[in-house]
Amino acid sequence: MQEPALVRNAISENLFNRVAAYVPGLNAKGALPPSAQRPWQKWVDAELGFRNHWYPVLPSRGIPEGGHRAVKVLGEEILYLRRGGRLYAIEDRCAHRGTRFSVRPLTFTNDTITCWHHTFTFDLCDGRIRCLLNDPNSAMCGQKGIKTYPVREVKGVVFTFIGDIMPPPVECDVAPGFFDEDVAICVADPYVVKANWRLGAEGGFDPGHHFIHNWSTWSACTGLPMTFGWVPNKEVVVETNMYQADKLGHNGFTRLASKSDVTSTSAWIPGRNGSADSEVVLPMARGFSPEQREAYEKSSYDGTVGGWMPGSLKVDWWPAPGIVHNEYYVPRDADSHYYFQVGWFRSPDPKLREEWANGELGQLRWKIPVVDQFTIDDATAREATHEFYAREGGWQQERTAPFDVELLMWRTFCSDHARGVQKVEHTQGKFPR
Amino acid sequence: MQEPALVRNAISENLFNRVAAYVPGLNAKGALPPSAQRPWQKWVDAELGFRNHWYPVLPSRGIPEGGHRAVKVLGEEILYLRRGGRLYAIEDRCAHRGTRFSVRPLTFTNDTITCWHHTFTFDLCDGRIRCLLNDPNSAMCGQKGIKTYPVREVKGVVFTFIGDIMPPPVECDVAPGFFDEDVAICVADPYVVKANWRLGAEGGFDPGHHFIHNWSTWSACTGLPMTFGWVPNKEVVVETNMYQADKLGHNGFTRLASKSDVTSTSAWIPGRNGSADSEVVLPMARGFSPEQREAYEKSSYDGTVGGWMPGSLKVDWWPAPGIVHNEYYVPRDADSHYYFQVGWFRSPDPKLREEWANGELGQLRWKIPVVDQFTIDDATAREATHEFYAREGGWQQERTAPFDVELLMWRTFCSDHARGVQKVEHTQGKFPR
Amino acid sequence: MQEPALVRNAISENLFNRVAAYVPGLNAKGALPPSAQRPWQKWVDAELGFRNHWYPVLPSRGIPEGGHRAVKVLGEEILYLRRGGRLYAIEDRCAHRGTRFSVRPLTFTNDTITCWHHTFTFDLCDGRIRCLLNDPNSAMCGQKGIKTYPVREVKGVVFTFIGDIMPPPVECDVAPGFFDEDVAICVADPYVVKANWRLGAEGGFDPGHHFIHNWSTWSACTGLPMTFGWVPNKEVVVETNMYQADKLGHNGFTRLASKSDVTSTSAWIPGRNGSADSEVVLPMARGFSPEQREAYEKSSYDGTVGGWMPGSLKVDWWPAPGIVHNEYYVPRDADSHYYFQVGWFRSPDPKLREEWANGELGQLRWKIPVVDQFTIDDATAREATHEFYAREGGWQQERTAPFDVELLMWRTFCSDHARGVQKVEHTQGKFPR
Repeated sequence: MQEPALVRNAISENLFNRVAAYVPGLNAKGALPPSAQRPWQKWVDAELGFRNHWYPVLPSRGIPEGGHRAVKVLGEEILYLRRGGRLYAIEDRCAHRGTRFSVRPLTFTNDTITCWHHTFTFDLCDGRIRCLLNDPNSAMCGQKGIKTYPVREVKGVVFTFIGDIMPPPVECDVAPGFFDEDVAICVADPYVVKANWRLGAEGGFDPGHHFIHNWSTWSACTGLPMTFGWVPNKEVVVETNMYQADKLGHNGFTRLASKSDVTSTSAWIPGRNGSADSEVVLPMARGFSPEQREAYEKSSYDGTVGGWMPGSLKVDWWPAPGIVHNEYYVPRDADSHYYFQVGWFRSPDPKLREEWANGELGQLRWKIPVVDQFTIDDATAREATHEFYAREGGWQQERTAPFDVELLMWRTFCSDHARGVQKVEHTQGKFPR
Repeated sequence: MQEPALVRNAISENLFNRVAAYVPGLNAKGALPPSAQRPWQKWVDAELGFRNHWYPVLPSRGIPEGGHRAVKVLGEEILYLRRGGRLYAIEDRCAHRGTRFSVRPLTFTNDTITCWHHTFTFDLCDGRIRCLLNDPNSAMCGQKGIKTYPVREVKGVVFTFIGDIMPPPVECDVAPGFFDEDVAICVADPYVVKANWRLGAEGGFDPGHHFIHNWSTWSACTGLPMTFGWVPNKEVVVETNMYQADKLGHNGFTRLASKSDVTSTSAWIPGRNGSADSEVVLPMARGFSPEQREAYEKSSYDGTVGGWMPGSLKVDWWPAPGIVHNEYYVPRDADSHYYFQVGWFRSPDPKLREEWANGELGQLRWKIPVVDQFTIDDATAREATHEFYAREGGWQQERTAPFDVELLMWRTFCSDHARGVQKVEHTQGKFPR
Repeated sequence: MQEPALVRNAISENLFNRVAAYVPGLNAKGALPPSAQRPWQKWVDAELGFRNHWYPVLPSRGIPEGGHRAVKVLGEEILYLRRGGRLYAIEDRCAHRGTRFSVRPLTFTNDTITCWHHTFTFDLCDGRIRCLLNDPNSAMCGQKGIKTYPVREVKGVVFTFIGDIMPPPVECDVAPGFFDEDVAICVADPYVVKANWRLGAEGGFDPGHHFIHNWSTWSACTGLPMTFGWVPNKEVVVETNMYQADKLGHNGFTRLASKSDVTSTSAWIPGRNGSADSEVVLPMARGFSPEQREAYEKSSYDGTVGGWMPGSLKVDWWPAPGIVHNEYYVPRDADSHYYFQVGWFRSPDPKLREEWANGELGQLRWKIPVVDQFTIDDATAREATHEFYAREGGWQQERTAPFDVELLMWRTFCSDHARGVQKVEHTQGKFPR
């Protein structure tokens, strides 16, 4: 990978100056005074997610022709159906008396669903009442009935737009590059993590969290230590975090990881009351020879890490050069989210791309080492932190360290650019009909 | 069955006129303007049931001599005991410190219960403190202690009065005919449905709901289609629904089903944007020959269907002429009710009645086809609708269709005639002692 | 045991006079008029326990060298660790972002714990931030981080102080005699009871509750009846309940049981409306010969029973002379507590004491008959009463009998002398850092 030149990023600098006063010990020049409300208040409000965004919800393979799946996204109960080759996503709640369609989804035609309770029949495309089987001349025919959700299916992933506005292109809400023609996508089965989605969206790029992976199966199998966590040099934060805000494009940042980290195999715990300091050696470095140790400390990860709205992480590369790890934290309800992970592989060869997406290549090179052996630690860390933020006032009680400044910048950026905040009312189907 | 002459029912007409304005598309002459509060507000308030009514709670066989059963009815925890041939129902909560008797019900005499915790001994008839075993001269002796519930046991069913007033005869709260001398009753084991009781009390006679039974085991076994749901001709609603309100008798209605239904085997879904309409044939009619189809469409169900306060359904006949299906929706708590079903058979022959009630006749002719194979669908439908009414503002958000007018009439009728509404305080034993 | 002379206890008299007006039928001379607030209001408030007291939490054997245990006490999540021969108790919540340490407790040195999430390293003694492994020069080093809990380990029991003040000696919060040199302690494994702790702290010495034990395994195996419950002669309550309140010592009371009980094997339930009275014979007395009956009724328990703050019971003797049963009700959360039971044996012989504490002696003579066969009934009684106090207004709705006067005295005494009341905020780690 070509060594990139560091440049000052104006958005990063603005974000940095707005949040710096909230990080004790940062002592940053140019920091703005704290305001009455923290600049990331919208992030704190977004317990159920950001509204008016696209989210990956299902792998395409999870919903074959004729099949259906009921899923809760941002608290909304959604029924997916694939009929006549087309995929639909609708509110799983009859407009008449709220019966869940998913108990017995009747699709007598490929573009309608009939409620099994009272024969209300809805257009799958726009949710209007097509007819009542028992009352053909009903005045309700043609009226708005249920909510339908825009879906777009790309490279084996079902994306859904949750919101009320005219949806922007799905590309805006997916990490940049996903849609490139030469990129193949391997999709892991998403699973539920019992933690709020924001702990995922902060934890993925969190410079300080890598410490947890020293005990991963991946680390034990490869024999490679992780770090103690990266503590970015504060002067270069605005040069290594390249934020971009595009009204009709990607919103997020790319961090040049190699410029912000110092690699070491050991740290020291100072002794107390005159007793000796203790050296802590990273678990997998414990048997290292001096040569191995030196080689490791000279090495640095030369990839990039970035966060993308409404809530995803792109790591280019991981676990090996040429492979991109990309994960999404899809809000389910206030206390859980779907962990949706995909691995990218770029190749001009369609056969190789197919082998990556649907053969064993993606499984062996990305899914097994990353999803099965590595990121499960991240899921555990979110669950171990959830109680604090959900029930113990964590958003006020947390004590940020200097390496958290990037988290606060991200929260603030999202608060600046989110298209809306999901509310409980949205989950109850209270929209104009 | 003799063809009944249609007559205008004054109560039905009054109810119809009061609710018609709330049903879009009904365009009824004589409809009163909507009032500030909907006329069925008491129904909306009655989440825990109507107070001061009789309810069937247990089959007699469920509580033999010497036995006991703890049950929750309208949120009240009640202990049933049969001692010395007499059945008692008492508050399952000691007046002293609230200990549940049911953990170890001590009945040293046939007309008392002694709390296993501190020897408080209560009269099973009136709940007064008979004595304290450890303090014979206690000033509490003779004071009101616990609540006792009037019970009446008829034809194998234990009825209980939940309320504070002098109970009217149990006959007032049971569907008419149950007590007739020549009627034998087969009692199915009641079971808990995870839905509010009102969804049962509306769903049973709901003219539009029959569609669900097309997929019943009963339908598949008999080869008989059900309907798409009945949409009563609005002009005849007040002539087919015969309401009666008797201060000391039955409160409810009988619908002459044959006059309100049109039987067909197929319906049409209109095509959209010029594409062709699609015919939907009822599941069990799909293999019908033209002759079978014609025969079916000529047929009509010549029985009656009716709702009775505080919450039951009487279908005369079902599943065959001569058999009455009668079911009760007994509130348990806000989120569940007991589904209590009985089948009737009228005969002058006591041996045949015995064979119906306790032999195999009632099992084979009514319990297996109806309870096991048919009404389980109704229970499922209630559960699939509960979330909407319990958590999503369904009582306000529902969108009624013209065939729902009968439901609104029923809700209004119950609001007019209920003897009271159960409150949370009642469930906590807060009554004068 | 020497017959003690009865003396008037000034504290008991004061307590008695303050609560007597709340017990109908007591008709006590000297009773003070009821006040606007009941004198035991602090007891009613102490749903989560009394703050600033010591509690027994774990048996020492439950946490060996190198081990750890996460426990919830008074709603606070505490992590215990034994490292380098020393036992520590710390807040199980990182000061940084609330991560639970207990998921992977990293103790690179014997006096620190490092958070597995972001390398924050805390001093186990005082909770200060020793260092951040990834940021050695952090300005946070030396700042207060997490809460640490004073622990003291005596005779195989781990005691912990939950509070904010300078802790008094642990002896103040343990039943008197526990620390005597010649007393050996056998510790049963504590278990969770699904009832508020106060129901334990009232039920243990409750004079009226003994009735429940007539059905105990112990009673059935020994063939010995219990009583119908003791109803103390109200004149002698202030002479048999010896209260003591010591600012730096034990707070509680000793009841001279032999002076307050009448032993009988039968009681009478009066007949109603002229029917005959019925005799109730205690279960295990039912086969007694007249001689056995007479012997039993002459007998009286010549031991003492007492309650000690913050919440324990000491019975001297039980189940046999020379053995002291001592049990603690340690608040866990509003709906549960730990039932922590220990048996004492006094001997000048260290070998015998060792045999009691860690050999089979304590198991056979105390743990099996008392913990396994007897006090499980008490746990059941608490659970059967919990709903009333937790959800049905029991603290207001209870109807006290004369024999409850001792409970009200105890509640009032605790309200007078408790060092504080635990609040929800305490459980969320909201303390100055």
